[in-house]
Amino acid sequence: MIRDVLKSGGRAVTAWCNIPSTVTAEIVAQQGFDCIGVDLQHGLIDYQRAVEMIQVINAYTTNVVARIPWNDPAITMKVLDAGYMGIICPMVNNRRDAELLVGNCTYPPMGRRSFGPIRAGRIYRDKPFQNAVEDVVVIAMIETREGLDNVEEIVSTPGIDGIYVGPGDLSVSFGDYPSVDPTNPAVAAGIETARRAARAHGSFAGIACDSAALAKRRFDQGFDMATIGMDHTMFGAALAGALKAARTLD
Amino acid sequence: MIRDVLKSGGRAVTAWCNIPSTVTAEIVAQQGFDCIGVDLQHGLIDYQRAVEMIQVINAYTTNVVARIPWNDPAITMKVLDAGYMGIICPMVNNRRDAELLVGNCTYPPMGRRSFGPIRAGRIYRDKPFQNAVEDVVVIAMIETREGLDNVEEIVSTPGIDGIYVGPGDLSVSFGDYPSVDPTNPAVAAGIETARRAARAHGSFAGIACDSAALAKRRFDQGFDMATIGMDHTMFGAALAGALKAARTLD
Amino acid sequence: MIRDVLKSGGRAVTAWCNIPSTVTAEIVAQQGFDCIGVDLQHGLIDYQRAVEMIQVINAYTTNVVARIPWNDPAITMKVLDAGYMGIICPMVNNRRDAELLVGNCTYPPMGRRSFGPIRAGRIYRDKPFQNAVEDVVVIAMIETREGLDNVEEIVSTPGIDGIYVGPGDLSVSFGDYPSVDPTNPAVAAGIETARRAARAHGSFAGIACDSAALAKRRFDQGFDMATIGMDHTMFGAALAGALKAARTLD
Amino acid sequence: MIRDVLKSGGRAVTAWCNIPSTVTAEIVAQQGFDCIGVDLQHGLIDYQRAVEMIQVINAYTTNVVARIPWNDPAITMKVLDAGYMGIICPMVNNRRDAELLVGNCTYPPMGRRSFGPIRAGRIYRDKPFQNAVEDVVVIAMIETREGLDNVEEIVSTPGIDGIYVGPGDLSVSFGDYPSVDPTNPAVAAGIETARRAARAHGSFAGIACDSAALAKRRFDQGFDMATIGMDHTMFGAALAGALKAARTLD
Amino acid sequence: MIRDVLKSGGRAVTAWCNIPSTVTAEIVAQQGFDCIGVDLQHGLIDYQRAVEMIQVINAYTTNVVARIPWNDPAITMKVLDAGYMGIICPMVNNRRDAELLVGNCTYPPMGRRSFGPIRAGRIYRDKPFQNAVEDVVVIAMIETREGLDNVEEIVSTPGIDGIYVGPGDLSVSFGDYPSVDPTNPAVAAGIETARRAARAHGSFAGIACDSAALAKRRFDQGFDMATIGMDHTMFGAALAGALKAARTLD
Amino acid sequence: MIRDVLKSGGRAVTAWCNIPSTVTAEIVAQQGFDCIGVDLQHGLIDYQRAVEMIQVINAYTTNVVARIPWNDPAITMKVLDAGYMGIICPMVNNRRDAELLVGNCTYPPMGRRSFGPIRAGRIYRDKPFQNAVEDVVVIAMIETREGLDNVEEIVSTPGIDGIYVGPGDLSVSFGDYPSVDPTNPAVAAGIETARRAARAHGSFAGIACDSAALAKRRFDQGFDMATIGMDHTMFGAALAGALKAARTLD
Repeated sequence: MIRDVLKSGGRAVTAWCNIPSTVTAEIVAQQGFDCIGVDLQHGLIDYQRAVEMIQVINAYTTNVVARIPWNDPAITMKVLDAGYMGIICPMVNNRRDAELLVGNCTYPPMGRRSFGPIRAGRIYRDKPFQNAVEDVVVIAMIETREGLDNVEEIVSTPGIDGIYVGPGDLSVSFGDYPSVDPTNPAVAAGIETARRAARAHGSFAGIACDSAALAKRRFDQGFDMATIGMDHTMFGAALAGALKAARTLD
Repeated sequence: MIRDVLKSGGRAVTAWCNIPSTVTAEIVAQQGFDCIGVDLQHGLIDYQRAVEMIQVINAYTTNVVARIPWNDPAITMKVLDAGYMGIICPMVNNRRDAELLVGNCTYPPMGRRSFGPIRAGRIYRDKPFQNAVEDVVVIAMIETREGLDNVEEIVSTPGIDGIYVGPGDLSVSFGDYPSVDPTNPAVAAGIETARRAARAHGSFAGIACDSAALAKRRFDQGFDMATIGMDHTMFGAALAGALKAARTLD
Repeated sequence: MIRDVLKSGGRAVTAWCNIPSTVTAEIVAQQGFDCIGVDLQHGLIDYQRAVEMIQVINAYTTNVVARIPWNDPAITMKVLDAGYMGIICPMVNNRRDAELLVGNCTYPPMGRRSFGPIRAGRIYRDKPFQNAVEDVVVIAMIETREGLDNVEEIVSTPGIDGIYVGPGDLSVSFGDYPSVDPTNPAVAAGIETARRAARAHGSFAGIACDSAALAKRRFDQGFDMATIGMDHTMFGAALAGALKAARTLD
Repeated sequence: MIRDVLKSGGRAVTAWCNIPSTVTAEIVAQQGFDCIGVDLQHGLIDYQRAVEMIQVINAYTTNVVARIPWNDPAITMKVLDAGYMGIICPMVNNRRDAELLVGNCTYPPMGRRSFGPIRAGRIYRDKPFQNAVEDVVVIAMIETREGLDNVEEIVSTPGIDGIYVGPGDLSVSFGDYPSVDPTNPAVAAGIETARRAARAHGSFAGIACDSAALAKRRFDQGFDMATIGMDHTMFGAALAGALKAARTLD
Repeated sequence: MIRDVLKSGGRAVTAWCNIPSTVTAEIVAQQGFDCIGVDLQHGLIDYQRAVEMIQVINAYTTNVVARIPWNDPAITMKVLDAGYMGIICPMVNNRRDAELLVGNCTYPPMGRRSFGPIRAGRIYRDKPFQNAVEDVVVIAMIETREGLDNVEEIVSTPGIDGIYVGPGDLSVSFGDYPSVDPTNPAVAAGIETARRAARAHGSFAGIACDSAALAKRRFDQGFDMATIGMDHTMFGAALAGALKAARTLD
Repeated sequence: MIRDVLKSGGRAVTAWCNIPSTVTAEIVAQQGFDCIGVDLQHGLIDYQRAVEMIQVINAYTTNVVARIPWNDPAITMKVLDAGYMGIICPMVNNRRDAELLVGNCTYPPMGRRSFGPIRAGRIYRDKPFQNAVEDVVVIAMIETREGLDNVEEIVSTPGIDGIYVGPGDLSVSFGDYPSVDPTNPAVAAGIETARRAARAHGSFAGIACDSAALAKRRFDQGFDMATIGMDHTMFGAALAGALKAARTLD
């Protein structure tokens, strides 16, 4: 279960899917990443495609999380019903946001999720009801100054299992150009503050990166989970590199 | 026009699309390759997706060819009507195959193509009829021993504009394991024979490669067009490399 | 019109579509159910597929309702514009929820629906504007303890035409494991309370079931509409039964 | 850029896409309209199709706007990330609505848009961050009596670039049957009021029409942008006209 | 049944679908044409979309025929199984072509069609086997000089119900530029020859046109069925006309 | 591997997919059938959907075969490249048909399959070339009188691994109405003849059934593989039964 992976304290190397395709999703799944993220926020993926993608990804792993486009009950419950066992929610800025998120991910009495795990119930059929309560991983993105200011109350919200730091939006929030590896000391310090807050409350901490090298640095810093880049940028870079090589080789 | 690119005698660095996605197709198209191949044979792409893909690719370039799954009139005429201005046909083994191919790609009196260039007519609207006669590029794959034996009669078939060598199938045809860069001297010699035959008849010669380095060697050998690998393998390799790096960096 | 069916006081045997397919939808529609529900909440169906499905279902019947994923104006208005003439909204817990729902389903002055019945206007072309006011059926799900407590104010909300009881979520709301046929006397009593409240206000009452036998019991209890199970579970059960039979027959 | 077109004070003749198809979208784009609207509100189009459609439309023009189904952050940010550089938002009724809309379209400090312009960043790659701040066009629909009453505070909201008047809903709001060309003097006056308010604040003003003749009248009235009808109605009318002609010609 | 329509001797005004969309197909079907053609040859439509399209079209009419891309058993039998009750086959040039076509459309002993009318059997469920023998309409396109020379042997082939003349390809076959209304006397005479041959053998005769006026002329000439243009050209023309009007009105 | 299952001499209970949906395919795959058939002939499924379906089915099993629409190299090689490891070909009537089929399924020197196992190579990555030679299962349908007459030469064709009897078409071939369980003694005898011929040559024998009871009889008769019915008919029957029950229960 993705919960075990993320909460193990290991270094979960994570792939990130933005391309709306079962074919690229399968190739990603075949690599053996510790975790796969399917991005319904910035990725070019909507719900219907996200269902097809997890159907294929599940052939290889259940360690998959969905980033939802916004803190909204409809899409949150729909991706959970489709079998995603982890939710990454953007722009969790305060306790209210965190509680709303947890409420959408959990059944009463904790939350307000409606029962009807159409596909999740088939995949995890021994305990279609309990697993949602026990096994779904709820991850709050810390990616604004406000979120950073309120990180303690966010990570201490019952039901929040971890955080995922978005350095790009965090930079913007500090008035900088978006950067995946911010040099602004205030932003860098904020990232560490968030990580420590998570750790202090027994939550894991993940962060968006754009390379193996940066992921490695983040793991060394103490992060539990890090992406190594997005599928579409890695794809574009591979093509661009080969084209350039073909034109410049002597 | 793709005809101009391929017949210019330059070194046409070519991308190869096997993933059935407008998103990956657009990323490929944004790189500036001299030519893009959309593979309906081994690629996981059928006609409907191939239409959507060329609609998007044409935003960037008209230098795109379709590899059809077999030497068959239905799919050949359909992709031409959809706006593909180049056809690569697998397994052209003799004069009869070559004439069948040309016949499917050209209007009477040369061939038997039916007139109805639904999308091609909109794209190339100044001359929806003539362009098909003058501008469509017809490429025969030389990838069997039989094709090699008959390469002269193939390249001299009126309407054949070029060849595209498939080293993998050619290796198999010689009893070897498929290889994109055959070491069997007979196969290597056959590749050069095909290239020279094409050149001698004023046809261009392309060949499948799997890296910029190999493409460079083929260009140096005198080939006019070379692929540098397939989209899905480049994608997989990029992901695998990053994952390995993230796990092994110290 | 679905309004006539549901408000006739008959026993509307209802099919429930969770599979995102025009082919299964057509098979459902061919059976002659009194009503068909297309589930955009727990079903694996999003808007685009729901459009294709109603296009096909309408070949057989207009007695079709959409369950929306949440009480949200965007999806509510979109499915209405697509030609769904009935809306089932989950988790209507109080007067405010009910008014929000009605507001999204009706044009001013009653509500806030925006005029633009792209497909509905073509299907019901004699009165594209009036029909939406007069003919759209608005159904509130009673499926929480709060909803039960407020059932009077919900069913008395102008524009609410009926209720649809969700026994599974209602069970959860009472602290039980979700059950389509709750044995907890408090839940069972709550279901009857909801039914009576609807009846007392001239509204019809529907309820989710999972078999013909249970539907029959609900009809006998006085419910006007009952589902007999979901398409994907009936499909799975049919397959499992046949497989087991093939393995055990002697 | 669409911003330049709309703010030029010219007469932007605008096409309107309701049909969820890359093929019809491409035909629309080939005509040379000054602006193209893709309608995710009343159109039968959802996000995934809207991505494919803009991929194809961008082959011809970047002058394209999306009408979102509702004033909601998720879909707003998703279509912006997909490369739409203009947003038309329905039912902007007051300052709060306008600020919410602007907030969803702009990065901090102005708004709350999350950074991740997956496709927009590739299309406008010189300045993926700045362009969103500077170049995205934010258009508020004035289509209710409340919106008309508050039009001053709407058009003066920082970040609102223009208005788009919806005469149909405006008619309904005044108690009339929806009309694209209202004869009710109060509604007609309201349309002019809105236009003047926009003009007075340096915003442009667009309006929905259903014919070239009406669009012409609106341009003469001082509107900067007008639609000439919807793709599906123009398609249906063309077919109906030809059928009638074929049956009645002598 | 389409057979009745086409063989009634009336003037069957026919629409022609090239756009791969259930939405445009439904709009076409709503107009009340006597017959609808779905074009899998020149149209941008493949089998899967053609299934969805006939599912929707059948809500309005069963008078629908499919033009197959080529005289091939696979696609012919697949569209028949999907519920198309009429087949138009391009490029039927001689008795052998005609017999192959009939053989693909009919069950033994007449032909070689395999039994498995998945959807047709549901639609015409009283006689899933017989109807295919009795009710499927088989139409041979006469569109080459060779076909014209052999028209007698084609129309007299048992199982051929009618012809559909393709003036464009016929013009090409005579060495002319493709024209839907050929002025070359030899081509014009050939069209009349084909029509008479069909009539003489009790077959009906249809022909491709591009306007109501031309269709009218063809009906007056004695043709039983005529198209009035293609969906995508009518769509493009309607848009272009409106745009031009909006720019030139004074 | 499917080869092991089918050649084990066990009783392979087989499911049959005609519905073009990854969701129904996944439900089928979850049941634990010994073998799954995806029908591209009579099923409403084309290549692109068949790729998505096997991606999902492979999450549960690799015991899956594709029935191709006709004995054609293009579709045969495409489904093999997509990862189907078994091919069922309709209407194999003689030695030439059988050799053509084997040739399309095998690499040289045995056959003419082109090398490029895009997805199969990823799934069976240890031996992308050899497996195709050793592991692909080639199944000839015996379903005509001619096929029956030539069954010896068919099953003795090198590379033919088994037969699949089609009782429906066989009945038709004998002049009867299609029946899955023919009572005509000549047809029944023919079925047994085919089975024995297969057995005598070390091939396995499968047969189409429509119920567990019939499958059981066929297993008892000595068949190695039997379908128990088609997905869409089992689905329709389950719905019809429940509807009838709901209407008739007292």
